[in-house]
Amino acid sequence: MAEFELIQDYFSGLSQPDSQVVLGVGDDCALLQPPAGKRLAMTMDTLIAGRHFLSDEHPSGIGYKSLAVNLSDLAAMGAQPAWALLSISFPQIDHSWLEAFVSGFVTLMREQGVQLVGGDTCQGALSITWQLTGFIEPGQEMRRSAARPGDAIYVTGTLGDAALALEMKRAGQDPGELEQRLTRPVPRVEEGRRLGAAGVRSCIDISDGLVADLGHICKQSGCAARVHLNRLPVSPWVRQYLQEGGDFRPVVAGGDDYELCFTASPDSVAHLQDMPVTRIGEILPGEGVELLDGSGNALPLPPAWEHFAS
Amino acid sequence: MAEFELIQDYFSGLSQPDSQVVLGVGDDCALLQPPAGKRLAMTMDTLIAGRHFLSDEHPSGIGYKSLAVNLSDLAAMGAQPAWALLSISFPQIDHSWLEAFVSGFVTLMREQGVQLVGGDTCQGALSITWQLTGFIEPGQEMRRSAARPGDAIYVTGTLGDAALALEMKRAGQDPGELEQRLTRPVPRVEEGRRLGAAGVRSCIDISDGLVADLGHICKQSGCAARVHLNRLPVSPWVRQYLQEGGDFRPVVAGGDDYELCFTASPDSVAHLQDMPVTRIGEILPGEGVELLDGSGNALPLPPAWEHFAS
Repeated sequence: MAEFELIQDYFSGLSQPDSQVVLGVGDDCALLQPPAGKRLAMTMDTLIAGRHFLSDEHPSGIGYKSLAVNLSDLAAMGAQPAWALLSISFPQIDHSWLEAFVSGFVTLMREQGVQLVGGDTCQGALSITWQLTGFIEPGQEMRRSAARPGDAIYVTGTLGDAALALEMKRAGQDPGELEQRLTRPVPRVEEGRRLGAAGVRSCIDISDGLVADLGHICKQSGCAARVHLNRLPVSPWVRQYLQEGGDFRPVVAGGDDYELCFTASPDSVAHLQDMPVTRIGEILPGEGVELLDGSGNALPLPPAWEHFAS
Repeated sequence: MAEFELIQDYFSGLSQPDSQVVLGVGDDCALLQPPAGKRLAMTMDTLIAGRHFLSDEHPSGIGYKSLAVNLSDLAAMGAQPAWALLSISFPQIDHSWLEAFVSGFVTLMREQGVQLVGGDTCQGALSITWQLTGFIEPGQEMRRSAARPGDAIYVTGTLGDAALALEMKRAGQDPGELEQRLTRPVPRVEEGRRLGAAGVRSCIDISDGLVADLGHICKQSGCAARVHLNRLPVSPWVRQYLQEGGDFRPVVAGGDDYELCFTASPDSVAHLQDMPVTRIGEILPGEGVELLDGSGNALPLPPAWEHFAS
């Protein structure tokens, strides 16, 4: 009974029966009424201690980030988050850990209008799986496969912050304000919805680094991408790091930024000037990602981000 | 890129774009078009090596059973299975293991009309999470909370087979035909749909043993259950075991049978005589599950099934 009561205690209050959530946590299944005329975007990701996060990290941070990175997948499709299922495995029942874990995600969940409708808890190595469902108007979804030669390439926000913060922590330095970018990434949900509604058809979220994730777009769209290093948007901290001779690899191969990378004709996004969006390159015929320095010379491509893998 | 290619190789062929599956495996999200007028039943369960199965079990058996037990949750709601997302963690990439794992679930998946639309693979301790979505007509769902005093209690099939098979294996005996009941449980999907359509409103699948699972119905419905031991349906193997002096606990507390336990007025199920259903007791005012022997004396309740926990 322990598992059952755990679920009830911690998770049953995180949904409110409404016209869409007919039945939430506590039965064999949740019962949902999808809104008429919408499509559903569904994603599921597992985060494992020692690989995607450190097991001695504060549980509220684990709770926050595990939900945020899944919301980022909905953002990349242009979907409006709606329902979540959560499966957690932990080595033993630790109520204070669980309380902090829940407190870490509950604010983000409410901000994004997500209801926790079901899930599972078990004993095992620390591991967290979120399954999220979002709503999307038919035709407004953004796919990895829809980039076309002639599109410009854009990213939201700034790149490399999370990777630099991690590098500083590993070197025993205090990343200061930059640490938030690593531990509390803000999923670009609203930006994703606006891009999809504006007619952008190709998008991905940057979880494994710009080169790797843009590479997915190229592969699935059957085209090539050229990126100009000196156009990549960076924060003041990363700018300083680069000016002091730091390596550019965190900017192009650093994961965990959870910004969006999308391709579109410049006309289609011209009216989105209030969004933090930077044009960084262009889609071309061919295959693969090419990275050019300020003189137009090709730079060697760094390997993809390895998260916390040793 | 290894993860990505793995997903493509093994999982991308397991859905067919159709009017409902707009986009399957391989993007940030799957895109689904829910059928008009239906509700969605959603469930997610994690199975962990060493807890829910043995890590040296044949991977095709792990593949089969991990999907079957999740289908059983849809069956208990009366839902028609439709879409699946799958997240697997394994210590290292082992193509022959993965091929056998997929071969284990793919036949069951097709038989049940399920499309694999997304998921995740990562490196970690062996663990499998399925998230399933099914369709259900509004009002035909069966809940744990809808049992009422005066209902009769029923189960499908026979009880105790899986537990007896496990006991025999642990004792070094060959369970023979009984082993199938442990390793290849057949989810009662069709029976669940028919019960829901017939007006049955309260149901659960027996994964932790009859007493424990019927206890969930009692707790959530605010009532009591009386079960008559000598009415419990058993297979010839379990009957022989009991006649030879075997303990009745596998029958009432053995998990892994994945039969359905439901409550209803006898009239409402009278026309379902072609289904393998046995009336085993009655719902009463009060709380808790009471187990009576053939003389009407209360029997001590065994503890809930502990799966493979040591």
